[in-house]
Amino acid sequence: MAMVCLSDFEAYAKKYLPKIAWDYFAAGADDCNTRDENILAYKRIHFRPRMLRDVSMMDIRTKILGTEISFPVGIAPTGFHQLAWPDGEKSTARAAKAMNTCYIASTYSTCTLEEISAAAPSGLRWFQLYIHRNRATSQQLVQRAEALGFQALVLTADVPYTGKRRDDIRNGFRLPPHMKLKNLEQDFEVCKMSLLDPSVTWNDIYWLQSLTHLPIIIKGILTKEDAELAVRHGVRGIIVSNHGGRQLDEGPATIDALVEVVEAVQGRVEVYLDGGIRKGSDVLKALALGAKCVFIGRPALWGLAYKGEEGLQDVLRILQDEFRLSMALAGCASVSEIGRHLVQVSKL
Amino acid sequence: MAMVCLSDFEAYAKKYLPKIAWDYFAAGADDCNTRDENILAYKRIHFRPRMLRDVSMMDIRTKILGTEISFPVGIAPTGFHQLAWPDGEKSTARAAKAMNTCYIASTYSTCTLEEISAAAPSGLRWFQLYIHRNRATSQQLVQRAEALGFQALVLTADVPYTGKRRDDIRNGFRLPPHMKLKNLEQDFEVCKMSLLDPSVTWNDIYWLQSLTHLPIIIKGILTKEDAELAVRHGVRGIIVSNHGGRQLDEGPATIDALVEVVEAVQGRVEVYLDGGIRKGSDVLKALALGAKCVFIGRPALWGLAYKGEEGLQDVLRILQDEFRLSMALAGCASVSEIGRHLVQVSKL
Amino acid sequence: MAMVCLSDFEAYAKKYLPKIAWDYFAAGADDCNTRDENILAYKRIHFRPRMLRDVSMMDIRTKILGTEISFPVGIAPTGFHQLAWPDGEKSTARAAKAMNTCYIASTYSTCTLEEISAAAPSGLRWFQLYIHRNRATSQQLVQRAEALGFQALVLTADVPYTGKRRDDIRNGFRLPPHMKLKNLEQDFEVCKMSLLDPSVTWNDIYWLQSLTHLPIIIKGILTKEDAELAVRHGVRGIIVSNHGGRQLDEGPATIDALVEVVEAVQGRVEVYLDGGIRKGSDVLKALALGAKCVFIGRPALWGLAYKGEEGLQDVLRILQDEFRLSMALAGCASVSEIGRHLVQVSKL
Amino acid sequence: MAMVCLSDFEAYAKKYLPKIAWDYFAAGADDCNTRDENILAYKRIHFRPRMLRDVSMMDIRTKILGTEISFPVGIAPTGFHQLAWPDGEKSTARAAKAMNTCYIASTYSTCTLEEISAAAPSGLRWFQLYIHRNRATSQQLVQRAEALGFQALVLTADVPYTGKRRDDIRNGFRLPPHMKLKNLEQDFEVCKMSLLDPSVTWNDIYWLQSLTHLPIIIKGILTKEDAELAVRHGVRGIIVSNHGGRQLDEGPATIDALVEVVEAVQGRVEVYLDGGIRKGSDVLKALALGAKCVFIGRPALWGLAYKGEEGLQDVLRILQDEFRLSMALAGCASVSEIGRHLVQVSKL
Repeated sequence: MAMVCLSDFEAYAKKYLPKIAWDYFAAGADDCNTRDENILAYKRIHFRPRMLRDVSMMDIRTKILGTEISFPVGIAPTGFHQLAWPDGEKSTARAAKAMNTCYIASTYSTCTLEEISAAAPSGLRWFQLYIHRNRATSQQLVQRAEALGFQALVLTADVPYTGKRRDDIRNGFRLPPHMKLKNLEQDFEVCKMSLLDPSVTWNDIYWLQSLTHLPIIIKGILTKEDAELAVRHGVRGIIVSNHGGRQLDEGPATIDALVEVVEAVQGRVEVYLDGGIRKGSDVLKALALGAKCVFIGRPALWGLAYKGEEGLQDVLRILQDEFRLSMALAGCASVSEIGRHLVQVSKL
Repeated sequence: MAMVCLSDFEAYAKKYLPKIAWDYFAAGADDCNTRDENILAYKRIHFRPRMLRDVSMMDIRTKILGTEISFPVGIAPTGFHQLAWPDGEKSTARAAKAMNTCYIASTYSTCTLEEISAAAPSGLRWFQLYIHRNRATSQQLVQRAEALGFQALVLTADVPYTGKRRDDIRNGFRLPPHMKLKNLEQDFEVCKMSLLDPSVTWNDIYWLQSLTHLPIIIKGILTKEDAELAVRHGVRGIIVSNHGGRQLDEGPATIDALVEVVEAVQGRVEVYLDGGIRKGSDVLKALALGAKCVFIGRPALWGLAYKGEEGLQDVLRILQDEFRLSMALAGCASVSEIGRHLVQVSKL
Repeated sequence: MAMVCLSDFEAYAKKYLPKIAWDYFAAGADDCNTRDENILAYKRIHFRPRMLRDVSMMDIRTKILGTEISFPVGIAPTGFHQLAWPDGEKSTARAAKAMNTCYIASTYSTCTLEEISAAAPSGLRWFQLYIHRNRATSQQLVQRAEALGFQALVLTADVPYTGKRRDDIRNGFRLPPHMKLKNLEQDFEVCKMSLLDPSVTWNDIYWLQSLTHLPIIIKGILTKEDAELAVRHGVRGIIVSNHGGRQLDEGPATIDALVEVVEAVQGRVEVYLDGGIRKGSDVLKALALGAKCVFIGRPALWGLAYKGEEGLQDVLRILQDEFRLSMALAGCASVSEIGRHLVQVSKL
Repeated sequence: MAMVCLSDFEAYAKKYLPKIAWDYFAAGADDCNTRDENILAYKRIHFRPRMLRDVSMMDIRTKILGTEISFPVGIAPTGFHQLAWPDGEKSTARAAKAMNTCYIASTYSTCTLEEISAAAPSGLRWFQLYIHRNRATSQQLVQRAEALGFQALVLTADVPYTGKRRDDIRNGFRLPPHMKLKNLEQDFEVCKMSLLDPSVTWNDIYWLQSLTHLPIIIKGILTKEDAELAVRHGVRGIIVSNHGGRQLDEGPATIDALVEVVEAVQGRVEVYLDGGIRKGSDVLKALALGAKCVFIGRPALWGLAYKGEEGLQDVLRILQDEFRLSMALAGCASVSEIGRHLVQVSKL
C-alpha cells in the first residue's frame, strides 16, 4: 500500500491498532461535530493563487519563539504514544528532531520527560502541562522540564473536566497494565478523576510564571475575549485549539476561531493552531489567516502506528512536501509572502 | 448495551416498543421536516467557550415560577405513557420527583390526575390542558388539578385540529382497548374528533383565569406577535413549542423561534422551550438564547420504555451530567452566568 | 396500500405505468435540476403560524378571474392523459368539475375539446394553446374553445422549441399508434418538430386578443421584466411556471420566481403558479407569497393513473384537506387572511 | 447505448479506457475538491429566462481574436491524446476543423505539431506552451508553431511544479513505451521533473513577445490582480483556468473566478474559461458572465475515447445543440444578446 497522503496513514492505523486504542485516539466529545468540523471548515476557505512569481527557490522555514524550524508544522501534545508504538514518546521525539521541528510533549506521556529528552537531546521540545489540584505536582513538572531543556511550557486551558467521549465510555477505556503515566507515577483513571484542578483561573498564570523562566504558551483559546486576557497575563503564545473536538462539542472549528483570535491579538504574541490539519494546503490556509505555526495531533499518532519514528517522519515529510508545493502553486516562495490576501473565507 | 447518551434510549425504544406505539411517539406532521429541524437547528449554533474560570463548584439549579428545580430540564406533556410502560404517568411523576424537576402531566394521560398526584405527592407538577367544546369539561379538569396541588396550568395553543401524521393514518393508530384517557373518561378517537374547540381565541385566557388561581402558561407560541399577545393577556410563562413537529409542518425549529420570542418578551414573563433537546449542550444553548428551562418529550418516553421510572431517571441524569459538563467546559459555574455571549448563531 | 399523501400516488404511478409513459411524465430537461428545485425550494420557506384565532369555520374557497372555485388548486395543462388512463382528458374534466375547480385543457390532449366539454358540461375550463406556424390552426382552436364554453385562454410562452429530456430521447418516446393529438389531427412527432412557431413575440398577444373575447392568461413567466410586459400587453393573468422543469434547466424554482413576479405586478392582474406543489402546505406558501391559485401537473396524472377520475378526485381531496388543515394550524380561517406575514423566506 | 449527453461519453470512457489512462485524465490535485467544484459551481447560477422573443433564426457563431468559430466552445489543451485514441491529436485537429472551432494543441502532445497541422491544414489552431528551463526549447517550439500556421500562443501559467495527483502516484503513471512527447523528443518523466522553469515571471511575457508576432494568451489566471497584470503585460486574451483542478486544490471554481476576472479586465482583452463545462447551458452561463468562449478538456478526451474524431465531433455537436437550445429557451437569438442580465448568481 502506497502511503501518499495522510488519509493513508489514518486507514492504516484504523486497520491495525487495537479498536480500543483507535477509538481513544479518534474520539470526539458527544456527537463529534466539532472534531469533524475542524476538518470540514477548511473547505470553506478558498485560495486566491497568484501566477508567474519566481518560485524556483522555496524557503519554507519559520521561527517559533525565535527558534527556527524546518517548516511551520509541529507535533501537538497527545497522550499515551505507547498505545500507538512500543517506544512511545521516545520515537516521537526522535522523529521531530530528525525533521527539525517542535515536539510538545504531553503530561500524559507514557515515557518520562527524562527519557524523551535523552531520545533526542538537542531537539526543540516544549512541555504541555495541566495545573493539578496538588500544586506541588505541577511545580515539580515545570522544574523538571526546565532542567531538561524543554524550551517552553504549554498550559492546557480547556480541561477543567474531561469531555464526554462516548466510545471511551462504551469501551471502558483504560491504559493496559504495563503502561503508566510515567511523569505522574499514577494510573490514568486516578488522574482523570481527581488530579486536574477545575478552579484554575487566569491568576494561576502568574503563579506559573513565578516558578520558571520558560515562556508560557496557552492552549485551548477560542475567543477574542480570552485571547485578550491571555496577552494581558503575559503569555508568549496562544494555541487556538478545541482539543481535537474532545472537550466541548459544538464550539467553533479552530480555523474559524483563528481569525477572531488573530484579530484580537494584533501581533502582540504568536498565535498557533491545532485541529483538522490533514494536508499541506491546510497549513497554508492557517498561515494565511495568521497562524505562525500549526501542530498535528492524530496524524502524528497515525504515523507512529504505521512505523514508529519512521512513520511519523513520513507523515511530516508528506506534509512538508505538500505545504511547499501548495505555497509554490499559490505563488509564494517563502513563508513571509503568505498573507491574508491569499485566501477567501466563505461565511458559515 | 451501555446507555451512554439519549440516542441509546431512542434505539432501545425503537427496537422494543410495538411498531404502532413507536410510530405514534416518533410521528411528525406531513414530511416530518419540522420534527427533524428541531434537532438539526442546534448544529447551526456554536459555543463561544471561555477558559480559566473557576468551575470547581458547579450550581446547575434554577427556578421556574419561583420554584427551585435541580436543573433546567423538565418533562414536557405527552400522551399515553402506558404505551411506553405499564405504570404510565405514575412512573413519570415518580421519576420527575426523584430528580427534583417539573413534570407537566398531559390531559391525554392514561392515569388519572389523582393517580399521578398520589404517585409523587410532593413533586412539582403542572397540568397541561386544552379548551374543550364543552367548557364544563375544561373547568372540571382545572379545578381537579388545582385541588390536587398542580402548581400551574399549561394551555396548549397549537391544536385547533390534530396535525396530519401519515404513519398514524397508515397504522390506523388507536389506543389498545385496556387503555383509556382516564381524565376524560373517553375514547381517544372521540376526543380527537370532537372535543377540542377550534374556536378558542385569546379571550378564552381570561375565562381560564376566572376559574383558577393557578398561573397560566401558554404552550405552542412561535412568533413575536403571539408572544406579545400572550404577555398582554396575563400569562405567566410561554413554552416555545411546535408540538414536536406534530402539528404544522415547516414552521420554525423551536430553538430558532426562541430568539424571536425572547426578544419580544423582554423578560416580562418566563420563556421555556421544548422540541429537539437531545444533549446537555442543547439545554445550554437554549438557556444562552434566553430560555429559563427546557422540557423533553420523546426522550422521556424512551426512558420510560427502557425501564419505567428508573429509565426516565437515567435519561434525566445523563442530561444533567451533560449539561453540567457543558457549562463547565464553556466556563460557566452557575446558571446565572449563562448568557447570549456564550453562543454564535449562524443564519439559516 | 393506503393513499395518504400525494407521494403515495406517485409511487403507484411509477410502479404501474409503462416505463415509457412514466418517464415522459416525470421527465425534466437536461439534469432535471429545475424539476427537483421546484419541490426543494419550498423547504426554504418557513411558516410563522399564529395561535388562538378562531378557526372553527374554515372557508377555503377563492375566485379566479371572478369565478369561484372550491379551493385554490386547479389542474395545470399537461398532455396525453390517455397515457395515464383510458378515458384521458374526459376523466380529468369530470374530476375537476366534481371537485368544483378549474381544469386547463392542453392543446396536446388525446381527447377533442368537444369530448372534454361534453364530459363535464358546466365545469370551469380554460384552454391552453400554443401559437402555431400556421396561424389558422391557432385561430380555429381559439374559436372552438370559445364556442365550447372554455372561459379563458392560457398561452404557453416557454416552448419556442421543446426542452431536451434525456429519457425521452433514450426511450424514443412517441405516442402509441391508437392515440392522437385529436385537436390537431396530427401525429405528435410532427407537431413537435414543425408546428410551433419560435418567432412568436409579445405582439402576437394583440393578434390573439383580436380573435376572441376570452381573457388571455400567459403561462411560463419567470422574471419581473416579462411580468411587466405581460401586464402592458393586456393579459389578465400570469402563470409563473417553468413547465415543470421540462424546458430550460436551471432557471428559478417557481416559488422563488413568484416573489419577483408578484412584486412587479402589484396586483394589476392575477398571478398563479405551477410546479412543485405536493402538499397542502405548499399551496398555503404560494398563496402567502401572492399567488391567487396554484395548478398541479404531475400529481393530477398520478391520480388519473391510480383510478381515473376517482383517483384524481382523491388527489384533489387530499390537497384540499391538507390545505384546510395547514391554514387552520397557521391561524387563518379564510383565504383572505393569508398574507406575506405568514412566511419567512430563507435566501438561496 | 445512446449517446445523449456528455455524461454518456464519460461513462463510456471510464468503462473502456485502461484504468491508468482514465485515472490520469480524471485526476485532480489532492482531494479533488476544485475539480469537482468546477462542475458544482454551475448549480449556484440560475437563469433569468425571457419569453416571447423571436428565436426562429438562431445565430450561435462568435469570434475569438477576430476569427469566426461555429459556436463559443473550443478544445482546451490536454496532453497525451494517444492514450485515448490511436491517432491522438491528429483526430482532435480533424474534429475541431470539421466542427469549425478552435483547437489548442498541447506541448504535451503525442503527435508533432507538423502532424497536427497536416491533419487539418486550414483549421483554427492555437499552441499551448510552457516556458522551459532551456529557453531555446521554448523558442524553437514558438517558431515552429508560428511557421505551421498556429494563430496564437497560449502560455500556461499555473505549472511551476506539477500538482499532486494521488492516483497517478499510486498507479505509478507513465506513458506507455510507444508514446512520446514528440514535440520535445523527451520522455514525460524527464519533462515533468526538470524541464519546466519555476522561476518564470511576468517579464518572461516580454521575452516571449520578442520571439513572435503571434498574439499571446495566458492560461491559468484566477484573480483580478493577475488579470490586471496580464493586461498590462500585453497579453491578448486570458483563459480563466485552474488546470481542471489538477494543480492547486481548493482554489476557486473557474466560473466563480470568471466574474472577478471579467470585472477587472473591463473588456480590454478577451476572457475565456475552461473547467467544468458539461452542458450547453454551462456555456451559456459562462458567456452571460462575460466569457467570450469556453474550452473543454476532459469531455474532448471522452469523445476521442469513444470514436476518435467522430466521437469528438459527437461531443461538440451535442454541446452545440444544447447551447443553441438553451439560448433559445432563455430568449436569445444570437450570442450578442447574451449578457449579465441572463443569470442570477447565488453567493457561495
